[in-house]
Amino acid sequence: MTHGERARGGGGAPRPVPGGSFHEMWRELAPVGRHPGSGGYRRFAWTGADSECRAWFEEQARARGLVHEVDRNGNQWAWLGDPTAGDAVVTGSHLDSVPDGGAFDGPLGVVSSFAALDELRARGVEFGRPFAIVNFGDEEGARFGLACVGSRLTAGQLTVEQAHRLTDGDGITLPRAMEAAGYDPDAIGPDPERLGRIGAFVELHVEQGRTLDLSGDPVGIASAIWPHGRWRFDFRGEANHAGTTRLVDRRDPMLSYAETVLAARREAELAGAVATFGKIAVEPNGVNAIPSLVRGWLDSRAADQASLDAVVGGVEKAAREYAEAHGIDLDVVRESFTPVVEFDHALRDELARILGKDRDPGLTVPVLGTGAGHDAGILSGSIPTAMLFVRNPTGVSHSPAEYAAEDDCLAGVTALADVLEGLVRR
Amino acid sequence: MTHGERARGGGGAPRPVPGGSFHEMWRELAPVGRHPGSGGYRRFAWTGADSECRAWFEEQARARGLVHEVDRNGNQWAWLGDPTAGDAVVTGSHLDSVPDGGAFDGPLGVVSSFAALDELRARGVEFGRPFAIVNFGDEEGARFGLACVGSRLTAGQLTVEQAHRLTDGDGITLPRAMEAAGYDPDAIGPDPERLGRIGAFVELHVEQGRTLDLSGDPVGIASAIWPHGRWRFDFRGEANHAGTTRLVDRRDPMLSYAETVLAARREAELAGAVATFGKIAVEPNGVNAIPSLVRGWLDSRAADQASLDAVVGGVEKAAREYAEAHGIDLDVVRESFTPVVEFDHALRDELARILGKDRDPGLTVPVLGTGAGHDAGILSGSIPTAMLFVRNPTGVSHSPAEYAAEDDCLAGVTALADVLEGLVRR
Repeated sequence: MTHGERARGGGGAPRPVPGGSFHEMWRELAPVGRHPGSGGYRRFAWTGADSECRAWFEEQARARGLVHEVDRNGNQWAWLGDPTAGDAVVTGSHLDSVPDGGAFDGPLGVVSSFAALDELRARGVEFGRPFAIVNFGDEEGARFGLACVGSRLTAGQLTVEQAHRLTDGDGITLPRAMEAAGYDPDAIGPDPERLGRIGAFVELHVEQGRTLDLSGDPVGIASAIWPHGRWRFDFRGEANHAGTTRLVDRRDPMLSYAETVLAARREAELAGAVATFGKIAVEPNGVNAIPSLVRGWLDSRAADQASLDAVVGGVEKAAREYAEAHGIDLDVVRESFTPVVEFDHALRDELARILGKDRDPGLTVPVLGTGAGHDAGILSGSIPTAMLFVRNPTGVSHSPAEYAAEDDCLAGVTALADVLEGLVRR
Repeated sequence: MTHGERARGGGGAPRPVPGGSFHEMWRELAPVGRHPGSGGYRRFAWTGADSECRAWFEEQARARGLVHEVDRNGNQWAWLGDPTAGDAVVTGSHLDSVPDGGAFDGPLGVVSSFAALDELRARGVEFGRPFAIVNFGDEEGARFGLACVGSRLTAGQLTVEQAHRLTDGDGITLPRAMEAAGYDPDAIGPDPERLGRIGAFVELHVEQGRTLDLSGDPVGIASAIWPHGRWRFDFRGEANHAGTTRLVDRRDPMLSYAETVLAARREAELAGAVATFGKIAVEPNGVNAIPSLVRGWLDSRAADQASLDAVVGGVEKAAREYAEAHGIDLDVVRESFTPVVEFDHALRDELARILGKDRDPGLTVPVLGTGAGHDAGILSGSIPTAMLFVRNPTGVSHSPAEYAAEDDCLAGVTALADVLEGLVRR
């Protein structure tokens, strides 16, 4: 038996559904940074929309009597109990978005955290450990091109020097952007003391695939984040007049690029992985000019390192053959890489028990891998970390079409509350 | 026997080579608008580099005692004799460039025109008809996206309303750009009276292909401009997360685009035509995002209309099949189209005679079609027009690598002088 619909109210006696506070928070947050044309969200780090989200977070903290705090890297914390006591239970996610992103990626975790606290208080749970809700800054990396800046800085996975060099599309550096938003960029840096006081971090997130939809479960637990990376393919040919250059005289890099796009799809299919060419830059990018340069970025992810190596190696080999055939020079540069992240097994098993047989002896909750990076993945190198996923019926993500049904969102709040109850009571 | 190397000094007695004035003009013009990084030219209409070119043109006119005049559409004219007398012989080309273009496309024709005049004077030729050298404005269309704006306006092939709506990448309209450069945008419009006073227009241009290189001739005559057009292919899929969306759940428009790029190459090969996807726009164009939109522009040209129809029809049919297979919506829009331009047969035959058997009874000069548009093509609808091409050993064009050997440039000057001598004496 799997964790199906009936698990929503599971775990024994009926409890008040925490829908009231969830709905209200969702409604308040919905218009912030929403683009009227696309219907998608543009909540980029250290912009006005981001500030509005952060003000909303602070308000939610204060309304619940939590102590609001901003750490040296601009991450927001809302504390219940003594932050310095140690072994704290922390939950939360992020409020920023990709360009024209959906409503759920990030905010669902933050809103569910506040709603779960309301639920714990309604249940009369006594907190045996300090508790906090967190909003990590700049998770999506939409503005400065690097994801999870807030958690990376805190975990010491991004140096101050590297962070100070981050620059947005308008040439504004991260320090200047933080300053403009009222934060001190000179204060940023690793925060091991803060992490040392956290005993467990749980992030709830909308699923960015269809595993739960296919299994028929509203909520699941993360096993691991797939190894993933970005590779830049520079195909260099010869700029020439599109109207007058004979086909045999051309060195057109667009042809090698096109063949490589199709090779990436084939290699990913063979390996049961994913591979995407979603970003391209062409020079001179004129209608009547054969390009001198086609630069394409490959994003690839797989369940294990061997599969990922097979995909990227296969794509690169094919690209080199195509380039050779067309007289094209090819450079392939690995721009970023993250090895597999296995979430803490003990914490994962504890969550599985709480959401499974603690509710019903025959109940099991699905445990699934994910191809997306998260703050939880960054922190998992420093502290015990776990993730909960909420069903996404279409699997669509990073798009205005991203969606989770209301019942599933509330099932997520209940699951998060159950998990937190189990952890804070300890 | 074809028009080979030995034709350069052909036509009887040895004459002074007009290399002196050609070299000096070429050296003066060389640094104007040249980008130090790319080595290519950025001489865009109504910018500073364009103004420098225009000042140089005026100086060359005045130095030769020609009457300098700017017409209502900003084209520059340098007159010898009475412009109003009618039946004038005009030669010239343009001085603007594509982004990072080469040194020869345009300037070779203008510089050769002044050098040919110097040669005619050295020969002591008497001018029986008015004569002018012209520099047409905004031939390349690099700034406002439409080629041959100066000649189109003059020939009434572009309305004032259409021209006033032209806007560059920074949102500056053509009228504002002309105004900023010191011209009156309210004066622009058709100029049939001016065209009515011209009996023949000859444009010398660097060849943008390898026909002359393959035939071993330094100079050739244009037969026709191939029919050509631009088609925009909008492939619309579904934006989604590149890391978490299963391959089977994707509607990735980049795949259909890639297949269509390869189909265009195949169709062009089959028809002996050319087809190019040189410009692309992707949304959201993020490394970790499956695109929602891939917009690609097809440029295609062929020797005749039936071949062009076969290529474009074949590409569109293939694209629709690929789109259907991937769940992609496809729109195809013809953005521009120019039917075949046949140059005036009488004038062409006259040039062939002057450069052929007038020089040597056994000599013939190659007559070739071209895939590129030119001001001469625009004017050919109004007045007798011809073109001379100068050999380009690699065929490279619209690139810093564009090239013509010095000997071939001087052969071009001599050929133009011979042609003009034959025309002005009439």
